[in-house]
Amino acid sequence: MSATTPDGRLGRVAVVGAGLAGSLLAVLLGRRGFAVDVFERRGDPRAGGEAEGRSINLGISARGIRALRAVGLWDGMAPSLVPMRGRVIHQPGAPLRFQPYGTRPEEILHSIRRNELNAVLVDRAEKEPAVRFHFGWRGSELDRDGGRLTLTKPGTGERRTVEADLIIGADGAFSEVRQLMHRGLPVNYRQDFLDWGYRELTIRSNPDGSARTPIEALHVWPSRRGLVVAHPNTDNSLTCTVLLPHHDDPQRPDQPSFDSLTTEAAVASFFATEFGDLPELVPDLADQYFAHPVSQLVTIRTAPWHHRDRVVLVGDACHAIYPFYGQGMNSAFEDCLVLDDCLARYGVSETALATYQQSRKPHTDVLADLATDNFIELRDRVRNPLHMLRAQADLALHRLAPQLWQPLYRMVSHTAIPYADALRRAQRQDRLLTWGAAAATVGTALVARAAWRRRRG
Amino acid sequence: MSATTPDGRLGRVAVVGAGLAGSLLAVLLGRRGFAVDVFERRGDPRAGGEAEGRSINLGISARGIRALRAVGLWDGMAPSLVPMRGRVIHQPGAPLRFQPYGTRPEEILHSIRRNELNAVLVDRAEKEPAVRFHFGWRGSELDRDGGRLTLTKPGTGERRTVEADLIIGADGAFSEVRQLMHRGLPVNYRQDFLDWGYRELTIRSNPDGSARTPIEALHVWPSRRGLVVAHPNTDNSLTCTVLLPHHDDPQRPDQPSFDSLTTEAAVASFFATEFGDLPELVPDLADQYFAHPVSQLVTIRTAPWHHRDRVVLVGDACHAIYPFYGQGMNSAFEDCLVLDDCLARYGVSETALATYQQSRKPHTDVLADLATDNFIELRDRVRNPLHMLRAQADLALHRLAPQLWQPLYRMVSHTAIPYADALRRAQRQDRLLTWGAAAATVGTALVARAAWRRRRG
Ligand SMILES: Cc1cc2nc3c(=O)[nH]c(=O)nc-3n(C[C@H](O)[C@H](O)[C@H](O)COP(=O)(O)OP(=O)(O)OC[C@H]3O[C@@H](n4cnc5c(N)ncnc54)[C@H](O)[C@@H]3O)c2cc1C
Ligand SMILES: Cc1cc2nc3c(=O)[nH]c(=O)nc-3n(C[C@H](O)[C@H](O)[C@H](O)COP(=O)(O)OP(=O)(O)OC[C@H]3O[C@@H](n4cnc5c(N)ncnc54)[C@H](O)[C@@H]3O)c2cc1C
Repeated sequence: MSATTPDGRLGRVAVVGAGLAGSLLAVLLGRRGFAVDVFERRGDPRAGGEAEGRSINLGISARGIRALRAVGLWDGMAPSLVPMRGRVIHQPGAPLRFQPYGTRPEEILHSIRRNELNAVLVDRAEKEPAVRFHFGWRGSELDRDGGRLTLTKPGTGERRTVEADLIIGADGAFSEVRQLMHRGLPVNYRQDFLDWGYRELTIRSNPDGSARTPIEALHVWPSRRGLVVAHPNTDNSLTCTVLLPHHDDPQRPDQPSFDSLTTEAAVASFFATEFGDLPELVPDLADQYFAHPVSQLVTIRTAPWHHRDRVVLVGDACHAIYPFYGQGMNSAFEDCLVLDDCLARYGVSETALATYQQSRKPHTDVLADLATDNFIELRDRVRNPLHMLRAQADLALHRLAPQLWQPLYRMVSHTAIPYADALRRAQRQDRLLTWGAAAATVGTALVARAAWRRRRG
Repeated sequence: MSATTPDGRLGRVAVVGAGLAGSLLAVLLGRRGFAVDVFERRGDPRAGGEAEGRSINLGISARGIRALRAVGLWDGMAPSLVPMRGRVIHQPGAPLRFQPYGTRPEEILHSIRRNELNAVLVDRAEKEPAVRFHFGWRGSELDRDGGRLTLTKPGTGERRTVEADLIIGADGAFSEVRQLMHRGLPVNYRQDFLDWGYRELTIRSNPDGSARTPIEALHVWPSRRGLVVAHPNTDNSLTCTVLLPHHDDPQRPDQPSFDSLTTEAAVASFFATEFGDLPELVPDLADQYFAHPVSQLVTIRTAPWHHRDRVVLVGDACHAIYPFYGQGMNSAFEDCLVLDDCLARYGVSETALATYQQSRKPHTDVLADLATDNFIELRDRVRNPLHMLRAQADLALHRLAPQLWQPLYRMVSHTAIPYADALRRAQRQDRLLTWGAAAATVGTALVARAAWRRRRG
C-alpha cells in the first residue's frame, strides 16, 4: 500500500550507487514492496577488490547496529567484526594507555571491512524479489522533473534511460545525482576540503598469526605534527590512516607535509620521532608509505536534499563529513531508516521527502561540526592531562547517574539520541559543570572567610 | 618593468567580464603597461540598456571613491551622482525620520546608475593605448595551466582562443572562470542563497520634475514582514528594491512571499499596511510589481582565488555578498587596487597572486558576515528604540573622541580601514561599552550603599 503511487501502481525506485547507503536502502525499499533498481558505477563488491580513497575498514556503532538489526543482519555478523573496547594511545617513550569507550560491556565499537559489509548488504538486498542490481552502470543524466535517469557504461559508450517514480542519489560525497538535481537552481551548497589528507598503512600480523599490538581497540598515535589512527581487522592485522597536512606552511617550518616528506630517510626519521613504536610495527613503513596515494577529506553541506517528489539524496551525497567521529556510515544508515519510514507514512510524495530532510538535516549539520572538532580532539587533546581529567569527570558523573549525565561521546556512539539533541544536552552538562565548579569555588571562599573571621573575632 | 614577464616580454592579460571590477582593472593594468584584452558577454554599456537582476543603481562610499580617484575619475563625476546624507526611515502613521550617516560633511554616500559608472570606466580604460574591449564574447573554456582562454560568440557558433600570461575572472557571482579554474580540484566553495529575494520599483519624479520625497538620502521602509530600500537618481526619481521571502513558510502563515502575493488586491493591501506612504509614491505599484522579475541574492565564499601564476579572480567572482552593507562594488574596487599593486611589486607570479589573496580574503570574509547581519539590522533594528539609543551613544562617543571611538558603520563606509580590522575595533568598543555600563552600575551601587550606611550609621 505504501509502495504504490497515488494512482495505485507499484512504485518504481531507481537508486544510484550500491555503496553502504544504497544497498541498505535497497533492502528496506524492496521489503516495502517497491520495485528497486540499483545502478553502481563500479563492479560487484562480492567480486572483491578494494576501492582507493574510501578507507579499507570502518567503525560501526549503535546507530549502524540498529539499522543492520532492522534488516535482520547484525546477529550473524560476529565473524566479520573485531570489537573495539576503547582507545589505545601510543606515545613516544610512554607505555600504551588504554581508555575504555564506555562503562558497560555493550558500549563498544566494532571494526569491519567496508567491502565485506557492502557485500553482505548486497546479498541481503538480492533476497528481496523486486530488487535488482546493475553493476558497471554510471548515472550520468537526469530529467529531474520527469523522473528519467540516463545511465552509461564507462568505456563502452552504451547508454540506457530508465523511468522511476523516485530517483535516489546514494552516490557518495561527489554525487553526480546531487549536481544534476541542483543544476541551475538557487540551492545552498558548501564543500570544505581539510588541509590535511591521509595515506593508509598496514600493521601486519605476526608470522604465527597473532596480533602485534592489542587487537580489540582503536589505536591512536597523537602528535602535534601528525596523527595516526588504526582499526583492527579479523586477521589480526590493523589498517592505519596516517594524517598529515597536504602542503607546507611557510609559517610552520617544523611541520612536515605530504609534499615535503619525499625521501625514505625523511619518512623514517619523522615517524620515529613522532609516532614511537609505529616503525617497529610496520617494518616496511617507507615502502608502504610511497606505494599508497594521498586521499582528500571533505565536508559537504547542502540544501535542499530533494527535488519535489522525484529525486532525493542519502548518506555522503547530502552530508559527507570528516571521518573523525566514525559516524559517516552510521549516520548514512540512519538516513535510510528515516527515508524508508517517511515513504511508508506518506507514499512517494513531496511531503515524504521534505519530512525526511527536516528530520535529518539539523542533526547531520551538527554532526559535521562535531566531526571537525574531533580532529583537534584526537590530535591534540588526547595527550592533554587537563582534558583527560575533564573526560574522567564526565565518565565518573555518568557512573554515578547514568540517566542524568551522559558524556557527548557516549550519546553519539552508543545511543541513537539525535545528534543535535545530544549536543544540546552536552552543552547543558558543560554549563552545569562550570556552575558546579563556580559554586564550589564560592563555597570554599565563604568557608575560608568564616574561618578567618572566627580567628580574627 | 613590472608589466613584463620573467623573460622580459610585455605581459598579456585577458580579463573576462567588463563589469565594474573588470573595467576598472583594465584601466589600472593598461596604465601599468600590460597589453589588456577584456571580453564581455553582453554589449557595450555605453550603448545603454539595463541588465536585469543586477540593480539599477548603487551606493558608492569611501573605498569606491578612493579607487576612482586613483584613476583620475572621481572629480568630474558629480553630475552623475546624488549625495545620500543619511537614511530616511518611513513608517506607517509616523513622520519621516532622518538619520545622518556621519558627523562630518564628507561622510556621505553617493548614488549612481550602475550603467553610467560602467560606461565611464570603459571610456577611461579605452584611453589606455594597450587596452582593448571585445563585447559580445563569452569566456567559455580555460586551459588553466597553459594560460589559454576560449571565447564564444553567443548564438553564432563563432569561437576564438587567446593566450595570456594572466587570465582574470571578473565575471561576477556566477563566474565561469571560477568554475573552470576550480574544476576537479580540492577547493573550498560555499554558496548561500538568501531565502528572501527582490523586485525593483520606481518612484517617479513629479510632473514638474521635482522629487516626491527628500532626494539626498537612502530611503528605508522597515517592517517585520518585508523591507524596501530606495536609492535616488539624478532625474529625481528613486529606484526601490522590495525584499520579501521567495516562498511561503507554513510556520508563519502571516508572512506573505513572492509566491503568495499574486493578485493586485493582495499586493495593494500588503503594501498599504506595511509600507505606509509607498503606495502614494508609486501610484502604479501593482503594475510595476508584476512587470518586474524576482531576483536572487547570493553570498559566495571560496578559496583559492588563483591558480598558480596563471588565473585569478576579482570582485563578485570570488566574494559575492548580500547587498545590505552597500559594499559589493566598493570592495571589488579595493581588490583591483590591491591586485594591481601586487602585480607591480612581484610581476606576474604566484607570489603576486597569493599575496593578493592573503591581503584581501580575510577582509572580504568578514564583509560577507557583516552584510548578512545588516539585513537583520535594516529590517528589524532600525525600528527598535533600544538599538537607536545604542547607535546614538556610538555617534556621541565618536563626536567626543573622533580618533578613539568609531562606529562600525562609519569605519566600513567612510574609511578604508580593512574590514576585519574595523570589526575587531568595533568589538573592542562594544566590550568597553559593556564594561563601562557595568562599572557605572557598580559605581551607582557603591554610592547607594554608602548613602544607606550613612543614613543608618
Ligand atoms: C578514511 C575514512 C574513514 C572512515 N571511517 C568511518 C568509520 O569508522 N565509521 C563510519 O561510520 N564511517 C566512516 N567513514 C565514512 C563512510 O565511509 C561514509 O560515510 C559511507 O561510506 C557513506 O556511504 P554512502 O553509501 O553514502 O557513500 P559511499 O560509500 O561512498 O558509496 C557511494 C557509491 O556510489 C557509487 N557511485 C558514485 N557515483 C556514481 C554514479 N554516478 N553512478 C553510479 N554509482 C555511483 C560509488 O562507486 C559508491 O559505490 C570513513 C570515511 C573515510 C574516508
Ligand atoms: C540589488 C543589489 C544592490 C547592490 N547595491 C550595491 C551598493 O549600493 N554598493 C555597492 O558597492 N555594491 C552594491 N551591489 C553589489 C555590486 O553590484 C557588485 O558587487 C558589483 O557589481 C561587482 O562587480 P563585478 O565586476 O565583480 O561583477 P559584475 O558587476 O557582476 O560584472 C561581471 C561582468 O562579467 C560579465 N560576464 C559574466 N560571465 C561572463 C563570461 N563567461 N564571459 C564574459 N563576460 C562575462 C557580466 O556580463 C558582467 O558584465 C549591489 C548588488 C545588488 C544585487
